[in-house]
Amino acid sequence: MAQVIADRRDIDFVLHEQLEVGNLSKSSKFAEFTKKTVDLIINEARNLAVKELLPLNKVGDEEGCKFEAGKVIVPESFQRVYDLFCEGEWLAMTEDPQWGGQGMPRTVALAASDYFNGANYPFIMYPGLTHGAGKLVESFGTDEQKKIFLKNMYTGKWTGTMLLTEPEAGSDVGALATTAVRNDDGTYSISGNKIFISSGEHDMVENIIHPVLARIEGAPEGTRGISLFLVPKFRVNKDGSLGEFNDVVCTGIEHKMGIHGNATCSLTLGGKGNCIGTLLGEENKGMKAMFLMMNEARALVGQQGFGCASASYLNALNYARQRVQGKHLLKMMDADAPNVPIIQHPDVRRMLIKMKSLIEGMRSLIYYHGNLDDLKNITDNADEKAKYQGMMELLTPIIKGYITDRAFDVCSEGIQVYGGYGFISEYPQEQLLRDCKITQIYEGTNGIQAMDLLGRKLGMNKGKPVMDLLGEMNKTIAAAKEAGLDDFAADFQAVVNKLGEVGMHMGTTAMSPKVLNAFAFAHPFMEVTGDVAVAWMLLWRASIAAQNMEKAKKKDQVFYEGQLKSAEYFIKAVLPVTLGKMNAILNNNGAAIDISEDAFGGK
Amino acid sequence: MAQVIADRRDIDFVLHEQLEVGNLSKSSKFAEFTKKTVDLIINEARNLAVKELLPLNKVGDEEGCKFEAGKVIVPESFQRVYDLFCEGEWLAMTEDPQWGGQGMPRTVALAASDYFNGANYPFIMYPGLTHGAGKLVESFGTDEQKKIFLKNMYTGKWTGTMLLTEPEAGSDVGALATTAVRNDDGTYSISGNKIFISSGEHDMVENIIHPVLARIEGAPEGTRGISLFLVPKFRVNKDGSLGEFNDVVCTGIEHKMGIHGNATCSLTLGGKGNCIGTLLGEENKGMKAMFLMMNEARALVGQQGFGCASASYLNALNYARQRVQGKHLLKMMDADAPNVPIIQHPDVRRMLIKMKSLIEGMRSLIYYHGNLDDLKNITDNADEKAKYQGMMELLTPIIKGYITDRAFDVCSEGIQVYGGYGFISEYPQEQLLRDCKITQIYEGTNGIQAMDLLGRKLGMNKGKPVMDLLGEMNKTIAAAKEAGLDDFAADFQAVVNKLGEVGMHMGTTAMSPKVLNAFAFAHPFMEVTGDVAVAWMLLWRASIAAQNMEKAKKKDQVFYEGQLKSAEYFIKAVLPVTLGKMNAILNNNGAAIDISEDAFGGK
Repeated sequence: MAQVIADRRDIDFVLHEQLEVGNLSKSSKFAEFTKKTVDLIINEARNLAVKELLPLNKVGDEEGCKFEAGKVIVPESFQRVYDLFCEGEWLAMTEDPQWGGQGMPRTVALAASDYFNGANYPFIMYPGLTHGAGKLVESFGTDEQKKIFLKNMYTGKWTGTMLLTEPEAGSDVGALATTAVRNDDGTYSISGNKIFISSGEHDMVENIIHPVLARIEGAPEGTRGISLFLVPKFRVNKDGSLGEFNDVVCTGIEHKMGIHGNATCSLTLGGKGNCIGTLLGEENKGMKAMFLMMNEARALVGQQGFGCASASYLNALNYARQRVQGKHLLKMMDADAPNVPIIQHPDVRRMLIKMKSLIEGMRSLIYYHGNLDDLKNITDNADEKAKYQGMMELLTPIIKGYITDRAFDVCSEGIQVYGGYGFISEYPQEQLLRDCKITQIYEGTNGIQAMDLLGRKLGMNKGKPVMDLLGEMNKTIAAAKEAGLDDFAADFQAVVNKLGEVGMHMGTTAMSPKVLNAFAFAHPFMEVTGDVAVAWMLLWRASIAAQNMEKAKKKDQVFYEGQLKSAEYFIKAVLPVTLGKMNAILNNNGAAIDISEDAFGGK
Repeated sequence: MAQVIADRRDIDFVLHEQLEVGNLSKSSKFAEFTKKTVDLIINEARNLAVKELLPLNKVGDEEGCKFEAGKVIVPESFQRVYDLFCEGEWLAMTEDPQWGGQGMPRTVALAASDYFNGANYPFIMYPGLTHGAGKLVESFGTDEQKKIFLKNMYTGKWTGTMLLTEPEAGSDVGALATTAVRNDDGTYSISGNKIFISSGEHDMVENIIHPVLARIEGAPEGTRGISLFLVPKFRVNKDGSLGEFNDVVCTGIEHKMGIHGNATCSLTLGGKGNCIGTLLGEENKGMKAMFLMMNEARALVGQQGFGCASASYLNALNYARQRVQGKHLLKMMDADAPNVPIIQHPDVRRMLIKMKSLIEGMRSLIYYHGNLDDLKNITDNADEKAKYQGMMELLTPIIKGYITDRAFDVCSEGIQVYGGYGFISEYPQEQLLRDCKITQIYEGTNGIQAMDLLGRKLGMNKGKPVMDLLGEMNKTIAAAKEAGLDDFAADFQAVVNKLGEVGMHMGTTAMSPKVLNAFAFAHPFMEVTGDVAVAWMLLWRASIAAQNMEKAKKKDQVFYEGQLKSAEYFIKAVLPVTLGKMNAILNNNGAAIDISEDAFGGK
């Protein structure tokens, strides 16, 4: 059975019918990205993903990365596909062509990435992290740093990483112990130990560029004293040629539950010789620089989780259509009734429509989040710019935290649909679940995302982004009524109103002596906010479907029917549960906080 | 950090304070199982589990089973521990001493198994399946079959399996194609291919006894024509010595997500020579025999999932107490505030109390289910016997389906508490999740369990078991009020009443033209029933805690505080969500059923 990745019809729907991405070409910035060009880009991305990336997914899982004599060896077949990916200029789709990017709208890049991440995201992490590291150089680098590093990174000649975590500094980045000592020539000698470094060492390219968080001698404790440095594996001469080894030593790789194709490295800097770095940005402003990158990095993780879920859904759907097992429920007593494909069984349909509605709502939400960035980039209106930026930041923890949580659920159901075969490595489903799991953890655990939503985003700019978001939801409600979906609109309106109430409750509780209770419900709060956001996207989709149904071709009508059913399922069978979750939040129960440490037991 | 398995104080609480298992010794059947004896048994089980089984868990996962030249080789260290387990007479704890059992109450055996399953359930599957196969021989075998096989199985000299599944007959057992041809001497020649056979082949014992489902030539199609046969790997002579190889050939083992220590085999019977079996029970009554065993087999799977969850919780708790990361939330702005163990962070506490309350509720439910069997076995009153049997059957899909679903959730949270370390194979958490996953699938997927609850158990005996169960819950409500827990009792009462309403709705819908809608909500119905059952157990526990708090020793008071907090959390923060799920069920939405197959997309 052929593996599948993402539903092209659905991608096109979001791009062209929901977000009307072709309109971006009216701006000078995106003038060349007409609908036709966009479609060609997605075609190319799909081809590369299906033909080249997808077949490597199992190879990466089974062969994994090997650590031998300080070197990391990736599966042999990775090299060719890495080169193809870079030749196709997919590494820095949204970036400035001056530096090797393609200047593409983020919305379009996300659609292309839908295929890449769904096909083989452990592999895509090599170029993906390179892009993120390059973005740091572009945003904070001196002209010289950019000249030396940037194009080589955006074209994939060199790869990049991100060195934050240390054994005693995980979620608490501020506890890091890596030090930087200023040399006479203005460079710094870095020393420390970093762990969990994705793509930290490998043999696909000649150099690896590490942005490193470290503390300059004498700098304050905590996050206020952290600076960002650029540390190449091999030093780079002024003419761009490679110099000597920079004492970035890989001391081992992790054996882990999933993403075996990506090397998770422990790195020692300056352990034996001299590890030289240059300051990236200002002294002691390293955390600020990281935070500026975080929207993008966290959104990327949301896409990774989503990619696993999208593939898991389509695999399950294919399997359910082909696997014949048991009679139809209405013909159980008829001895002569034939066995049927399991898609005809009610419980399998329940799993499939649950997966479908989540996939569709989450895809829209991811593209919408990217689209806000595009809209921000093409408007000259400062208020609009601020509005788009605010909504984007507000939605980031939802994209990362909520979507990866739900993606994991979808991958789990994707195994259940396969029954026993779902547990067997011969089939793709169990790997997708294992790979998906880390997306709930890295780039800030989902608990951290929930704290970000409650602690930073909810009250940001006196709540304006929240009000803006609720305002957009109300526009969708009006559109739904116009499309004749009054029943769905009314149900959704009630949930939006209640979300407002819950948000107010959380905001005031977080400012009260009951602040700990509030944070014990930060994660449930993220969950209900995400539920409402997905319902919003599905209602929006259904409104378009209802409006266009009559005049559509038969094949489109079937797709639109699917849109109406996804919305119906989510609104009628999921939102009642969301309301229950909101009631639990409003209860504001303190058991989790009040219980003494010893009473948790286990001693 | 030492790994842990199960909380002894909690086990003792359920055994002695909640179920008062010592009272069973008032019966002649269990006279020797006084409280003191019970405690000694649990001590021994714990010792064996902690010292011998637990250290092999990672070995089993990493070494796994090897398939070489038709033979399956288990990790070398398994043999010694298997022998120790059998010497300790743990294989058939509840069975008749005449056949090598220990005649132990099931409740006590479950407490011992709590340690075994939590320590290393992939290993325990070898003796566990042997016990199940032996039980079939005991229940349906002729005197001769018992004489030849039973004691050798219950003592673990030979192991057993269960040969049901075939490539085209998974959930639909009735589709199986294995045939049996009667020979002149009354034996049968069996031929067919079986897959997914746990412990199907290995090198720890000299013989393996396979109960096999097959169809006798000329028998009806479907489940009505299935018979059960006893097929040894090596034939057994009348004097008990081993005869020639019986042509049960292992053709391969599966590579799978978890339970690597247990060999999942494909077996071909009668492919080359002659595979001889003897009829076990009556012709064409094979499915009936299997169903009689199902309560026990399914409950065992619930325990396996629970074992993973119990270990995952205690590991997470230990980790949260020791891992220092970040400042206390109330001192975030204080630069001099020390970093604290993560158990002090609200979101970590939320995860821990969620895990704790589920573990405790599920442990009580599992023991309660076993206790019903004990109570049934010691009463002479036919009505009581029927009552206990009915409630046990009603709860079986909850024990298997609901508990393994929640166990998987707990294992997933258990990874989150560890952060990045949770994903690393050096730590126990990721294996527990992988091992846990199959418990949602085998012995009937959880979708099948939900259908069993709705289709068979809800209306069984005109709903008497349901009424009995609700009656028991009402007794607990009365006891809670007596203990001064009026608030909890009132909340729980409302949910029990609503469960009655939902049950009625499901029952009538399942008998109406909307039957497909009903079955599309079978799984949510199982979920809410399970939630209520867990809340019931927690309220019961809390009532005991409240009653005994004042006079208790300090250490017990802390434990009782934990009981009150678990109940409070579940009632105040989980049951509102359960009510939301019930509202979703009552909506009875048909989107999952009405959507056309094509509208699921993906084409």
